[in-house]
Amino acid sequence: MNDRRVYMDHIAGTPVAPEAMEAMLPYLGDNFGNPASIHHHGELPQDALFRSREAVARLIGAETEEVIFTSCGTESNNLAIKGVAFDSIGVKSHIVVSAIEHYSVLYSAKSLERFGFEVTQVPVDMMGRVDPDAVRRVLRPETALVSIMHANNEVGTLQDLSEIARITRERGIVLHTDAVASVGRVPVSVDELGVDLLSLAANQFGGPKGTAALYCRKGTRLWPLFHGGGQEDGRRTGTENVAGIVGMGKAAELTMEALPRRMDACRRLEDLLRRGISDHIDGIQFNGDPERHIPGLINVSFRYVEGEALLLHMDLRGVSVAGASACMSITAKASHVLEAMGVLGSGALGTLLFTLGEENTEDDVRYALDNLVQVVDMLRAMSPLYTRS
Amino acid sequence: MNDRRVYMDHIAGTPVAPEAMEAMLPYLGDNFGNPASIHHHGELPQDALFRSREAVARLIGAETEEVIFTSCGTESNNLAIKGVAFDSIGVKSHIVVSAIEHYSVLYSAKSLERFGFEVTQVPVDMMGRVDPDAVRRVLRPETALVSIMHANNEVGTLQDLSEIARITRERGIVLHTDAVASVGRVPVSVDELGVDLLSLAANQFGGPKGTAALYCRKGTRLWPLFHGGGQEDGRRTGTENVAGIVGMGKAAELTMEALPRRMDACRRLEDLLRRGISDHIDGIQFNGDPERHIPGLINVSFRYVEGEALLLHMDLRGVSVAGASACMSITAKASHVLEAMGVLGSGALGTLLFTLGEENTEDDVRYALDNLVQVVDMLRAMSPLYTRS
Repeated sequence: MNDRRVYMDHIAGTPVAPEAMEAMLPYLGDNFGNPASIHHHGELPQDALFRSREAVARLIGAETEEVIFTSCGTESNNLAIKGVAFDSIGVKSHIVVSAIEHYSVLYSAKSLERFGFEVTQVPVDMMGRVDPDAVRRVLRPETALVSIMHANNEVGTLQDLSEIARITRERGIVLHTDAVASVGRVPVSVDELGVDLLSLAANQFGGPKGTAALYCRKGTRLWPLFHGGGQEDGRRTGTENVAGIVGMGKAAELTMEALPRRMDACRRLEDLLRRGISDHIDGIQFNGDPERHIPGLINVSFRYVEGEALLLHMDLRGVSVAGASACMSITAKASHVLEAMGVLGSGALGTLLFTLGEENTEDDVRYALDNLVQVVDMLRAMSPLYTRS
Repeated sequence: MNDRRVYMDHIAGTPVAPEAMEAMLPYLGDNFGNPASIHHHGELPQDALFRSREAVARLIGAETEEVIFTSCGTESNNLAIKGVAFDSIGVKSHIVVSAIEHYSVLYSAKSLERFGFEVTQVPVDMMGRVDPDAVRRVLRPETALVSIMHANNEVGTLQDLSEIARITRERGIVLHTDAVASVGRVPVSVDELGVDLLSLAANQFGGPKGTAALYCRKGTRLWPLFHGGGQEDGRRTGTENVAGIVGMGKAAELTMEALPRRMDACRRLEDLLRRGISDHIDGIQFNGDPERHIPGLINVSFRYVEGEALLLHMDLRGVSVAGASACMSITAKASHVLEAMGVLGSGALGTLLFTLGEENTEDDVRYALDNLVQVVDMLRAMSPLYTRS
């Protein structure tokens, strides 16, 4: 129907930076060796792992040996949550998460109930913000872990983690943050945030799918999800995805350098799209914190239209955009995040999630906006509930 | 010191087949999308996942939906063992493994002791063979799982799994096999083996590191190691390593077609090297089953020399070969496999593990052999224990 394609779903994965892909190729070619090998073929892969670990550590202000490579953000979150929980089994038995965590945090925590853990969900306000005092109030002597995401992947809201960190530190409770949506989009420093564990994923900042990391502050104990040969200091054993890790390292390097420019570009495009939507479409509601959120993300609900129809028609017109949740598009469930924020209201409310990237242009934004206006008009024209205001 | 490089450590990872790498590239480029996305950018990755799953399933005679993609053989083994154990917690509490399993099986099983599981190790004979009757004898009503590897990764011995499968099936016990060392080297059929779970890794048959799979027979229940968004039918959730999976799929296709030729080539080269070693070096001992083992693998011990010195000097002369265990080279521990086989004997005994691949040539073998003869001579000349026979 349309040859033009505009990608505005960066939270589902960014394009791989050409430099990152370029860096990976030798490790799919001549440098295919196993970094565990102590002969010639192990040397270059070993060196490459070390340099990538340095680059990723630098990106988040960590020490090199505090970076554990994993296979995806979901694994990092599971390793953090189950790792702390299983390590503290018999000693502690309580986990605190927010109500708007990614499923890989929510369901990891929930899966621990069969091992005797109790999980408390702290609520969020209408902007998707966690009140640090709400965290303080639910802590118990038996609390092993608090996990509060840095930026929400659906509404983009950034949390005040340093305040939460002060509270958990005083009590010797491990603090994890899922920073998959924020690393590569805003500056992230593990020390400024004050966290003990932090998840990040390469495919959120120009690296390939299949590689991610968990920052693990020195002294933080984890029961490994994988037992075996002893790679990653025994915390995540298994033959490393060398090429993927090299791609992640290169993407981290590029991000270090490009982040201010990337944030500016995303903010500018976001403003353009946000204003366009406000100016041209009525019956809308922007979700998330308008002040503190990741640049380039717009979560917007439209009254009297269905989200799935919106998404489908935008796709037919060449605009790739997500429904309520980028990761869970395939299930098309109502967003637990918007529900927890109490902004779902009643009646038909279709939600779209635009996440812009630095390669998007103003022309892309105009193209998306024009089509959005037409699609919303068309769908509302078919709706018995809608009357033009 | 030397420009020539001969790679004879294929068990530590094969080179990536050029066709597999070629197939991956688009998914690191334009087709970078997330297969969970229901818009245009999700379509090609979704299709690619499906086709790769088909190819991997075909390689082992499984149904497409019985293939779960993971990130490495270690993950597959951990998912199998912990998956079955955690699923049966409170109902069953006993696991059986062989004494020569890969560490990812041995230590996964051992890690479950803190959850109340008991682990029984069945012994092997001097060839590294598990007696099916020995398995039968240790089974209990509370046995949840038996895990016996298909081919041992150090000595290459192939087990008689179908006989073991008959025993476990009768009793409703889940049977897992670590087939990481065998898939791609010998024909593997999940139905002929009779297993419920089977681990395989792409980097053993021309695919990239970072991608592996667990075959899971319909109806076999697993507690997932990762909880989250629901990918891989909830059994291994997390954004998929699309490019890696595509590489694995292509490598599986190539293997289907190339396996007879690959086996012939490896057997021929193995014979050449084995005979050369026998003819030119005394005080040696070949380890493993001379009849039933994976083609191209030679595990050989040399009296009066140290394994590490052997490996180092071979490396200096341009031959990449492993010590006792390819995966664990970095730790340089005595092999638990040779120990379990009771073939370590006393006194200095250096072991090398040659694993040949289809791209090796007769000239490679002659080069390796010439250098091996010289290195062994040189090291023995320095040994106070050795007297030429």
